[in-house]
Amino acid sequence: MTSWPDTRLCDLLGITLPLIQAPMAGPNDHALAVAAASAGALGSLPCAMLSSEQIRAEVARFRELALSRPLNLNFFCHRSPAPDATRDAAWRAALKPFYLELGLDPDMPLPAATRRPFDAESCALVEQLRPEVLSFHFGLPEPALLARVKATGARVLSSATTVDEARWLAGQGCDAIIAQGVEAGGHRGVFLGDDISTQPGTFALLPQIVDAVELPVIAAGGIADGRGMAAALTLGAAGVQIGTAYLLAPECKTPAVHRAALQSAAAEHTSLTNLFSGRPARGIVNRLMRELGPLSVLAPAFPQASAALAPLRAAAEARGSADFTPLWAGQAASLARAQPAAEITRRIAAEALRCLGQ
Amino acid sequence: MTSWPDTRLCDLLGITLPLIQAPMAGPNDHALAVAAASAGALGSLPCAMLSSEQIRAEVARFRELALSRPLNLNFFCHRSPAPDATRDAAWRAALKPFYLELGLDPDMPLPAATRRPFDAESCALVEQLRPEVLSFHFGLPEPALLARVKATGARVLSSATTVDEARWLAGQGCDAIIAQGVEAGGHRGVFLGDDISTQPGTFALLPQIVDAVELPVIAAGGIADGRGMAAALTLGAAGVQIGTAYLLAPECKTPAVHRAALQSAAAEHTSLTNLFSGRPARGIVNRLMRELGPLSVLAPAFPQASAALAPLRAAAEARGSADFTPLWAGQAASLARAQPAAEITRRIAAEALRCLGQ
Repeated sequence: MTSWPDTRLCDLLGITLPLIQAPMAGPNDHALAVAAASAGALGSLPCAMLSSEQIRAEVARFRELALSRPLNLNFFCHRSPAPDATRDAAWRAALKPFYLELGLDPDMPLPAATRRPFDAESCALVEQLRPEVLSFHFGLPEPALLARVKATGARVLSSATTVDEARWLAGQGCDAIIAQGVEAGGHRGVFLGDDISTQPGTFALLPQIVDAVELPVIAAGGIADGRGMAAALTLGAAGVQIGTAYLLAPECKTPAVHRAALQSAAAEHTSLTNLFSGRPARGIVNRLMRELGPLSVLAPAFPQASAALAPLRAAAEARGSADFTPLWAGQAASLARAQPAAEITRRIAAEALRCLGQ
Repeated sequence: MTSWPDTRLCDLLGITLPLIQAPMAGPNDHALAVAAASAGALGSLPCAMLSSEQIRAEVARFRELALSRPLNLNFFCHRSPAPDATRDAAWRAALKPFYLELGLDPDMPLPAATRRPFDAESCALVEQLRPEVLSFHFGLPEPALLARVKATGARVLSSATTVDEARWLAGQGCDAIIAQGVEAGGHRGVFLGDDISTQPGTFALLPQIVDAVELPVIAAGGIADGRGMAAALTLGAAGVQIGTAYLLAPECKTPAVHRAALQSAAAEHTSLTNLFSGRPARGIVNRLMRELGPLSVLAPAFPQASAALAPLRAAAEARGSADFTPLWAGQAASLARAQPAAEITRRIAAEALRCLGQ
């Protein structure tokens, strides 16, 4: 029988493997969470792009299929920006050539941007649904809401992209800290300041956070196989959070164009971009990023940038093109394997134990 | 008796610890190399900023003090840029307010930029001095010179910042590849393309290079203690290259203002900047980087940007200010300890073995 050198995370979260399936808003519904949970990891359900009704339905399906396994609900903690018609108009103007190229009306009405912050309604939902774990991105909810969350008995996690952020989160009562290295796919969790030029990689960030806080630290970013999991534990992590490695699993609703990019040489080239949402997030470099530059002052504030991209994305994807799709992926994307999520989970854990000499 | 799980690098380079003291042009003369070598690491002597005469003298001192230990000579492989008076003038104009503030004549004659590429003269010197190891940065020398280097029997190393670069270096006959993650201090070794927005962190880069080439891979970037060394070996590295962790050693000629920055909270915030030389390199954020932005189109081509900064740096350092000093440091700078270099070497190796359960 093999065993993990550090059981703090398993004990804290009620899991058998110190591995969290990273919430990935978009492709990740209950199916991925159930599969990861069935193999002993913590299954996560990203809620930022779901209505309360959808969250309720997804949680019900998870409970039905994963029986007594714990569940992590993930929420964003940004503040919704004030409407800014001038900025929105400049963004639409920048995208107009693409609209014309795809035969779309550049003045068509746009859908609302879909990411919503954790609010009183989310909190009431959490009080009803009683997830065992909540993870937050972009900081934490306001203190009154956080107190209500903690009163449910849920364990609270949040992402730190710097040592300062880790100290801040520890001071606010988090139960564990996710150290999100710059390798990570999707949105940077950064919430203190907005300078992403100084964001550290996992190798440097993780041990410094381990030294700075007493809490268990979960490594995220660049970890996509057992070697990475073992290396993170060697650096002092109590566990790991893995996302990109699951994107090719059949249980993940990864769009076909995204799946194809992950399986191509393009997956070796990711960068941080604010074009798709307004906040920096890591994805495989595609045409929009190349032509506007990955970081642009033109992109409206989070999450508003996504609105004017939605029609372009839909039209391009219908033609099999990933030109306007956010191809979220971490820097270890090329290590992802097309395998059922439970097998991915078991493979990574077994390989990690082997690397650790257990 | 403890032992390393992988002895390829020790066998290849004739060392007892799979650890290379990273060449750091500026503060790193024979004294640091001797101290690191005495503890069993590979001592390195950066040659890009030295004349042939200086290199000869430094090597002689190393041979005298380190006896039969192997030595690594490090050279840059950039191409010297064509003179560009317009760009130089624009750079001087951008720096003019700082010249005036420090009471310097903005039109004073400037020293020549000091970094020179590996050329026929360097090659003849290598043929005489016979270093056991040569490491190159920014690619490799032209094939005819490389063939002469290899004919001396020296082992040849070079840095890869991407998987593509690693494959290229392997194809050119390198004996081992240094995987330089984006966490690393000093100059990025990038030589294929110039897009630094896609440069991977060590956690992602290292295992992908290990998978892509048959050669031993040396991890660099973000490694400053035994945990990091053990984690790199766990990810498949045959050894590590460590620089920043030595900057506080008494054998390292680190300027006082640089030393002070390393020991302050500022060390938590580094970024890539092209201001000091014209090529992207990682250093602790200081006033020049804040005021011009760390990456600026104004900086002349490598190494020319350094010329107009030299008087500013000297004047500011004389007043105890690090405003214009390149404070090269990796993202794990806060883990550096003020200790003799031999002790640093032994501490890191012993801690790594402990972490590896040896």
